Formats: sequence, structure tokens, C-alpha cells
Amino acid sequence: MIGRDQRRPFATRRGFLAAAAGVGTATLVGAPSSARAEDEPSAPSLEPFFGAHQAGIVTPAQRHAYFAAFDITTDKRAAVAGLLKGWTDAAAKLTVGDPVAGPADDDYAADPDPAEMQGLGPARLTLTFGFGAGLFVREGHDRFSLAKQRPEAFADLPRFPGDQLAPARTGGDVFVQACADNPQVAFHAARTLTRLGWGVATLRWVQVGFVSDYGRGETPRNLMGFKDGTGNPSITDPKEMDAVVWAGDEAPEWMLGGSYVVIRRGRMAFEHWERTKIAFQEQTFGRRKLSGAPLGREGEFDPIDLAAADADGNPIIPENSHVGIAHRAALAGARILRRSYSYDDGAAMTAERWPPWRQGMEFDAGLVFVCFQRDPRKGFIPIFEKMSRFDMMNQFVTNTGGGHFACPGGVGPGDWIGRALFDA
Amino acid sequence: MIGRDQRRPFATRRGFLAAAAGVGTATLVGAPSSARAEDEPSAPSLEPFFGAHQAGIVTPAQRHAYFAAFDITTDKRAAVAGLLKGWTDAAAKLTVGDPVAGPADDDYAADPDPAEMQGLGPARLTLTFGFGAGLFVREGHDRFSLAKQRPEAFADLPRFPGDQLAPARTGGDVFVQACADNPQVAFHAARTLTRLGWGVATLRWVQVGFVSDYGRGETPRNLMGFKDGTGNPSITDPKEMDAVVWAGDEAPEWMLGGSYVVIRRGRMAFEHWERTKIAFQEQTFGRRKLSGAPLGREGEFDPIDLAAADADGNPIIPENSHVGIAHRAALAGARILRRSYSYDDGAAMTAERWPPWRQGMEFDAGLVFVCFQRDPRKGFIPIFEKMSRFDMMNQFVTNTGGGHFACPGGVGPGDWIGRALFDA
Repeated sequence: MIGRDQRRPFATRRGFLAAAAGVGTATLVGAPSSARAEDEPSAPSLEPFFGAHQAGIVTPAQRHAYFAAFDITTDKRAAVAGLLKGWTDAAAKLTVGDPVAGPADDDYAADPDPAEMQGLGPARLTLTFGFGAGLFVREGHDRFSLAKQRPEAFADLPRFPGDQLAPARTGGDVFVQACADNPQVAFHAARTLTRLGWGVATLRWVQVGFVSDYGRGETPRNLMGFKDGTGNPSITDPKEMDAVVWAGDEAPEWMLGGSYVVIRRGRMAFEHWERTKIAFQEQTFGRRKLSGAPLGREGEFDPIDLAAADADGNPIIPENSHVGIAHRAALAGARILRRSYSYDDGAAMTAERWPPWRQGMEFDAGLVFVCFQRDPRKGFIPIFEKMSRFDMMNQFVTNTGGGHFACPGGVGPGDWIGRALFDA
Repeated sequence: MIGRDQRRPFATRRGFLAAAAGVGTATLVGAPSSARAEDEPSAPSLEPFFGAHQAGIVTPAQRHAYFAAFDITTDKRAAVAGLLKGWTDAAAKLTVGDPVAGPADDDYAADPDPAEMQGLGPARLTLTFGFGAGLFVREGHDRFSLAKQRPEAFADLPRFPGDQLAPARTGGDVFVQACADNPQVAFHAARTLTRLGWGVATLRWVQVGFVSDYGRGETPRNLMGFKDGTGNPSITDPKEMDAVVWAGDEAPEWMLGGSYVVIRRGRMAFEHWERTKIAFQEQTFGRRKLSGAPLGREGEFDPIDLAAADADGNPIIPENSHVGIAHRAALAGARILRRSYSYDDGAAMTAERWPPWRQGMEFDAGLVFVCFQRDPRKGFIPIFEKMSRFDMMNQFVTNTGGGHFACPGGVGPGDWIGRALFDA
């Protein structure tokens, strides 16, 4: 449907990366068509699936996301490789809006379905695949003979103070992030990949997310009403992305050009938050709510001055504010690319951890914090070790699930996600 | 913010209805700005809150919905009236994008929050309020002295075969439907109304919904991939709406110009559905999947001929197909206005009711079936009595929650939703 001749064959991963480096990031990760894409059936827009890096990482954030983590239920290495081949093939089709047939060996006949997405177009769908710790070793067992390929940077996350990670919402052996400007397109992709996994991989947890479009160049607001993502490194600066996001020569061959994602499902305590004066919310965040400016400044992108003090000598940006901690960590070299989504899972019986200690039906909504980085030991882990202890925001946010995954580099046509790992 | 001078004062409900009847439906329910509205910050679009009828019923469906049902926790009639006054006032503000202050008597100070929706605009937000059976009588107790005001048409729903309604997801004393072209706007409205209800009303269940925009005039597809809503009566035909949707002189004064809504949360068994040949899916639905045409016809809007038979004399549209049953009911006078949304609540441990009887993590997604009608005894109830017994679709859909509510007529400025009931 969409000009496949755009896709150039290439030989080796390192060779491809070198060749691709010459043509600029925009081509590498798919020209980020428009930062403000609408789900216009008449103007289908797409993000190329093939490339040196996987799409969905430095791609301008689409409006909707579907995260799915799977447990591998087979002990056959070839079956896992087969799954990844099938997923790669399907992803290439889904991201251009083509139908995908069911597994041929299924008891039931599944036709490729031309109707499902009829009229919606690809809606900038990206599919990003990652591998969890359990793919390398599970319960001490090197089940797929991949243990020696586990990257050093892919360290286990420590248990952070305040974590309330439910096992059913946490972890997973393989992971898919589906992002699109239409929720039905993202879900359709997740459904299709899940269907292809029957007998090999079973859903462990999924999470639906969204982010509102505030207009070109505008930082979106999270459900607390604050702009979220202001201090992000620039996705249009390839050098910055090489430094912050992409695994380099320190990584095993199969991770070259890949990235490590950490996901945290943070429930926000709205009953508490919404009874809190905005001035205190701003102290908590370290920024003004309306403008997004650092406290004491006027503009959203004004520099953060942690040393600025008021007449009494107190820091204007509180040391334990969210921004205070994050910026101090960044100055110390801990940097990540955030790509978070809001989530809205309705309401559930909840016992609050903080005053006013409510128990009852409360909204189960908040932030799916998503960050990509070259090395979590130098990114999320040191940042969150501080935040989990000191961040004033902790009284409003509880992390209830998530995971972290090694997302390998991208592939070209004929190749498949993870081949370099399984061939290593 | 938005020209309030558009809102005309009027005296009595019946007087207003008569006056408004002269100016056409579009004005009555708020000029349906554009059937295809985008959540463009630069082009805020709104649906008037005030009118003879509540908005959100014959309003062209927005892309996102948030349904919230509440239990009333007070035994004070005046407190309920106060809640409805506060909700009405808040709804008038929310639907034009204005901030809403917290309850003045709260222990915590809640400021009106200018930031929350900054940059999103009203996004065609509508808020539609309804009253559940429990507002009139709960456990035999006429707790607010409203029992005699319960409309005859607001009959209890029977238990239908196959119902698996979880009490925690079903019913409620009062109900709000928030619809908008932006999910954050709809959720913000629900949060705000919930906050105003603290101490008087507590969340019982909520449900998030969405429907994709397939372009102007195109019938949207549900998550089964079929066009859903083809046979709906026309929302632009006031006579049709009077006949099908709006309560008339048979209703108590306070319900005049109102409507009864029935909501069913129907989980779709995708693992089953997606292993089913499309030809069988079409037999189940009674329509072609791609075109939406009735079986045996070419176009989506071609007339349905239940008598058409194949060479063997078998009906081309199976008698127990979804459309077969619905159309037969419509011919017998049972008509409703459907205004359904898809839902996507992630995944959950599930035991299927039908072959292949799977148990495991499966998608918890499907349809929030929403229908409005003048009299459920002549609308949803007879239709679903047939469907719940015979519809081939039942093997793919399980109703797990919902409710039915009496949505009173609309109000003008200075009036409040339900005043006519509490004054009666």
C-alpha cells in the first residue's frame, strides 16, 4: 500500500548503522511527519517500521499507546525466534495499514481481516519490541541459552522505597509498545500480535495510555495539570540521542542502536491532589502550573537555577521538589528520554497511603512513565533512587506496576527483530 | 469565555419546550457544530449545555466518553438537591472550558484550577445527568420522598439470559455521561463532578469509552470490525426524535423532554472472535463486514429484506443474526437511539463462556452499549428479551455491567437539573 521501495536493503547491523548515519536522523527513524498529526482518514500518515533504530522511541509521541508484556510459555528457542519473525512481519504490515493473517497452524482458520482498520489508516502506528530479564534467565534457568547475551547495562532494578508493584502488573519476558494517533489502531496492533503469539506467549499485563495534543510545539499536560516533558533532550538532535538514548559500542552486538526502556505505572491520588492548593502543587513540582516556568522564572524553557534563593535564603525551587531532584540528577549526568502517557483505568477500591488516608472507590488513573536510555544504571536508576526517597510528589503518586526491557536496534526488510540476539 | 448571551431565559419547562420547538432542533440541542470535530486548541468547539433537552443525547457522538455512576450516601433530600445544583453550575462552566472551584465547605481549600484544561478547549464536551432507581426507592425505603415521582416507563430491567452483571459495575443512584472529542476533557469533567460530590455521592462504577472517527458521514466500526449504528434513527429529524427518544406527555412533568438511557458493558471475546471466519462473523452480524451492507445487498444503507431467501429457501439474513433480531423488533415498533462507545480496559483473568472455553489473561474490551429511548418498555426491553435468547452474537459478547437511568429534560440558565423533580 505504501511505497515499499523506500526501504533499502542493507547487509550487516554495523554496516547499516554506519551507512544510515550519513543520511540523518529524520530518515533513520522515519521522518517525523508532523508533530501534530490528526487521525484523518483522508490523510494517512505513517512512521516507517524499518530503520537503524526501532520506531516509537525518538518518534514524536503519538496520542495513544498500548503497552503489552508477555510471558513466554514455550521452552523451545526456535518457537521464540519464530514468534519474533512473525511479529516483525506483522509489524511491517500493521504500520502501513495492511491486514495480517492468523497463524497458519491454528486449529481455527483466521482470515486476514481487511475490515478491521478500514478507513482509519496507519495513524502513525509504531511498534517497539523489547526483551525482559526473563528471556535471558528465569528462576536461575538459562532456558533459551541467551544468558550470556544479557547486556551489563540491563541490570535488575532495585526495589525502590514506596514501590507497590503488583506482580500481575510487572515484568514480562517480551514487550510491545504500540503507539498511534488513534486508539483503535494501537489496540488492533496489540490484538494482532497477541493472536500471533497464541501457544508461545501469553499476556502478562497490558496498559492503555493517551496524551492530549496541545498543539504544535506545546508540551502536553499530565493528569495533574502540569506540563510534562519540558526538560527532555531533543529528539531531533542525533548527537544528543546517541549520548542519551542509543546503546553504543559498550553494548552486545544485538543491542547496537537499541535502547533500554523503563516503565512505571504511577497512580495519582486525585482526591488528595485536588484538595491541595495550587501554590503547594507548584512547590511539589518545582514549576508554575499554568506556564510551566521553573519557580521564580517566567517562561517554560527558562533555565533552572537551583541556587536561587528567596529573601530568607531558602531555595526558590525546593530541594525535594520533583524538578529539583530531576535537574540535580541531570547535572550529575543522569539523563533519560521521557515518553510518558496518561492512563485512565476507571475506578477501583483504593486505600490511600497518605493523608487524608481515604479508603473507597477512587479513580485509578495517572501516568504511565516511560523512559528510554542508553544505560539504566546511569539513567533511571540513580534518578529514581533519589526521587523515591525525597520527591514531594511521592505523596500523590504510587507506582503499582511496570517493567524494564532491552529494546534491540532496528531492522531492515528481510531481517527480524531479535535475529542478531538469537544468531549470536 | 463563550458568549453567554446566546442563552435565553425562559419561564416554565412546558413554556420553554413550546417556545423552543419553534426554532428547530439544531438550536434546541446545540447546533451540532461539525460532525467531524477535531480537538483543535485553535478551534475550540462547544455544545451548548442549556436547552430544552440535555445535550449528549442527540448530539453527534464525540470521540471519547466517561460514564460515572454514583451512590448517594446522604439521607438528606436537600443535600441531593444541593449536589444537583452544584453539578448544574459546574456543567455550565465545564462545557465552555471554564475552571470550577471546589466545594466551599471542604476541609481542604480547593482553588478553581485554570491550568487543568489550558489549551484543550471545551472539545464539544457534553454532560448528561440521569437518575437511577435507587434515587426513588432503595431497599424499599422512599428515602428522599421521591417514590411517587418515579415514571412508569422507568421500569426495572428484567434479568436477561446470559447476564453476568457484577453488582460493582451495575446500577447507581445518579449518573453522569461526559462526552468530548478529547479524553482528558471528558475525564476532567468527571473528576470535577466527583470532587463536588464528596460527602454526598460516591463513585459506584465508571467506564471509559471511545469511538474512532471514520470521517464525515461514515458509520464507525466497533472493535469487532463491523460498522455499528447504521440503522439508527436520524438525530437531525426532530419528529423522529420525539417519537423514539424524548419523553412526552405520558411522562411526569419533570421528565418532559427527557429520555431513558440503558447502558450495557459488553465484553467481546476476541480470542474466539478472531479465530472465526469472516463469513461466519457476517452470518452472526447479518451484514457484510467491509461494506456494512445487509447480507445479499451491496450498500450499507440498502433496505433490509428479512424475507429474502437463497436457492434452498433459507433466509439470507439469518433469523438469529444480530441484525435479523434488531430489525424484526424495529418493525414491531421497538426503537431506540444507539449512542455506543468502544471500551478498552486492558486485560484480565477471564474464563470464557463459550468454546474454546479459554481461561487466562484475555483482553477486557468491547462495547459500552448506550441507548436512549422514550420508553424502555417499548425499546430496549423487548429488543433485548429477544436478543438475549437468540442472538448468535451472544457467544462473543458477555454483558458484565451497566445501568439504566431517567435523564430529565434540559434546563435554562438559573435552573438546575432535577429541580422539577425535587419541586414536584
